[in-house]
Amino acid sequence: MSVRQKQSVLGILGGGQLARMLAIAAAPLGVRTLVVDSAGDACAGQVAPLCQADWTDFVALEKFAAEVDVVTFDFENVPADTAHWLAERVAVFPNPRALAVAQDRLAEKNLFRECGLQTPAFEAVDTREDLSRALAKIGAPSILKTRRLGYDGKGQFRIKQLADADAAWEALGANAHGLILEAFVPFERELSVLAVRTRAGDFRVWPLTQNWHTDGVLSLSLAPAPNVGELQSHAEALARTLAEHLDYVGVFALELFVKDGQLLGNEMAPRVHNSGHWTIEGAITSQFENHVRAVLGLPLGDTSARGFSTMFNWIGELPDAAPVLNTVDGHWHDYGKQSRPGRKVGHATVCAQDTKTLAARVGEIARGLQREEQAAPGIRALSS
Amino acid sequence: MSVRQKQSVLGILGGGQLARMLAIAAAPLGVRTLVVDSAGDACAGQVAPLCQADWTDFVALEKFAAEVDVVTFDFENVPADTAHWLAERVAVFPNPRALAVAQDRLAEKNLFRECGLQTPAFEAVDTREDLSRALAKIGAPSILKTRRLGYDGKGQFRIKQLADADAAWEALGANAHGLILEAFVPFERELSVLAVRTRAGDFRVWPLTQNWHTDGVLSLSLAPAPNVGELQSHAEALARTLAEHLDYVGVFALELFVKDGQLLGNEMAPRVHNSGHWTIEGAITSQFENHVRAVLGLPLGDTSARGFSTMFNWIGELPDAAPVLNTVDGHWHDYGKQSRPGRKVGHATVCAQDTKTLAARVGEIARGLQREEQAAPGIRALSS
Repeated sequence: MSVRQKQSVLGILGGGQLARMLAIAAAPLGVRTLVVDSAGDACAGQVAPLCQADWTDFVALEKFAAEVDVVTFDFENVPADTAHWLAERVAVFPNPRALAVAQDRLAEKNLFRECGLQTPAFEAVDTREDLSRALAKIGAPSILKTRRLGYDGKGQFRIKQLADADAAWEALGANAHGLILEAFVPFERELSVLAVRTRAGDFRVWPLTQNWHTDGVLSLSLAPAPNVGELQSHAEALARTLAEHLDYVGVFALELFVKDGQLLGNEMAPRVHNSGHWTIEGAITSQFENHVRAVLGLPLGDTSARGFSTMFNWIGELPDAAPVLNTVDGHWHDYGKQSRPGRKVGHATVCAQDTKTLAARVGEIARGLQREEQAAPGIRALSS
Repeated sequence: MSVRQKQSVLGILGGGQLARMLAIAAAPLGVRTLVVDSAGDACAGQVAPLCQADWTDFVALEKFAAEVDVVTFDFENVPADTAHWLAERVAVFPNPRALAVAQDRLAEKNLFRECGLQTPAFEAVDTREDLSRALAKIGAPSILKTRRLGYDGKGQFRIKQLADADAAWEALGANAHGLILEAFVPFERELSVLAVRTRAGDFRVWPLTQNWHTDGVLSLSLAPAPNVGELQSHAEALARTLAEHLDYVGVFALELFVKDGQLLGNEMAPRVHNSGHWTIEGAITSQFENHVRAVLGLPLGDTSARGFSTMFNWIGELPDAAPVLNTVDGHWHDYGKQSRPGRKVGHATVCAQDTKTLAARVGEIARGLQREEQAAPGIRALSS
């Protein structure tokens, strides 16, 4: 009897929906997954073995490292110490340096500029005096943000006028990791570029995605973003430069603003990203599959879109599935999580071969769910 | 805090690759799975909780029935007693009667005729005398088969000439469940129709699939089958009649021969089927997802094809994945099983928007794997 080689095991730090969708994409590739999360009911544990441990439980992590071939992340705020400690024991992708840069808004913005990607004006803020100096330069409106551990609009204070400075300092000044003041950019559109790079240096991007946020959380995505012209090749070149600079391996997302027709860098997510969920049905190869391929050293799959796709994000609780399931090319994604205000609990993607049909399908779902407001900017963009 | 309803749990009898792909399709629908298999290393256990028990372990099955909302099958030869016993405790789809008919080649063929589907000539054979009488009617070449528990060419004896009768009887005559003698049909093509019916009676079929077998095992599929003309609507009408007759719920496959341009019924598989694996990437909704939707009482998804697809079956051991992963729209499916002669260990699907591009991609994979012989009939059909 001929016996197959042992299957590769991918370790994932964090057991949320990203780990869950990575595990589902890994299985057909013959890659087993092992997830670490501090929560015993982390939703990735429904589709993969789960090791319950926190980021400083080095006894559990030692065992985890011994059981996996490669480690990756569903969660970018894994402590740098943990990432470095693991990287001494097992292959970790993306590498801890890339993770560290993406964890720090200041380092990230400096890197963007170094790589030729313009950004909104920004200044480091460590003291109340720094804040005054920064406000004198940048003015209002502007946004004071924690350098670390912010996501989905958390750890941010909007300074509408200069007199808000004290309130902003009171809200965030105690943060031990420092702050950054960023100019508020009245952008025309929000785009993101999903990119993937392999251990051998192969690099690909998916078509640009257009995004809309509500209360700082992604609400709707449309891909390929319409009418982007040369922004696609600009975004691709910038993402490639960044990836090469960081020797990045795996999928990452670069969130971009468009202002006066130019790209500005907002932030980088060193992992598969919510704005790339449409790729499961809407691209030849999904972000999840290509991330697994990249970190395991397999060849990348094609990143072309299959037609046009719109993704609805479900925040807090799931709406009724029926309007999505009843719509042609409508696809439902329940993450198996408990409802909780502000929590990402699922998404739906609807696809079509042309923008007019897609707009009709998005409208059908929106009406069925009484979510016309969520869908409206997507329908407008599809009709433009 | 608003709390979601408990997730539905789908129980699956049998933990092979079909259960594995059902579990992967169930997760995004928010459906959890629980698999029963007598083997502790059944490959579905890599993606879903596995309960190790055999079909007559009613203590384990009692516990299983209490934990699931609906039971379905990855394996059609679950004993009828077990299916009936479970159906008294929990919803079982397809129903045990449909399962029983599909388990018995004689009942199945009689049902085909009742539903207006022609079949090769056949005769029931219980004794050596029956065999002589049947051979006098049907002649040679013909095939003696066990009525039950045959699959992938197992439990069959090819009678090339009348003098082979004794050898055939010696090989199969001891079978306790009886035999059937079927005329050998020099068919022009083998097709299959995948169909799905819901608890509410909604019914859909996927486009016809053309299949090629090697040593009785599926080797290559092509979908939509080219040049089928009215056979598509004939197959759909026959499948619908059969499904309604059996009050069938879920996906089933009807294997068909084409002889003189007419459909003949070969056999029915009361489950998702190898010839429908192309639907994962090649159809708007896969057979696995629609089976889950159907048995859970959810609305069906669209069964249209996305372009054209070819599926290679991997038997015994997996070839090198790279030629598939390197081909545009090439998709790899490793079932996570140990290699063993004759065992289905994986498949690959390659898709394209037109038949010419698909033929080129199939050729590229075949050359890369030195599997030109496996691919040749598909390439010929794509070029016809």
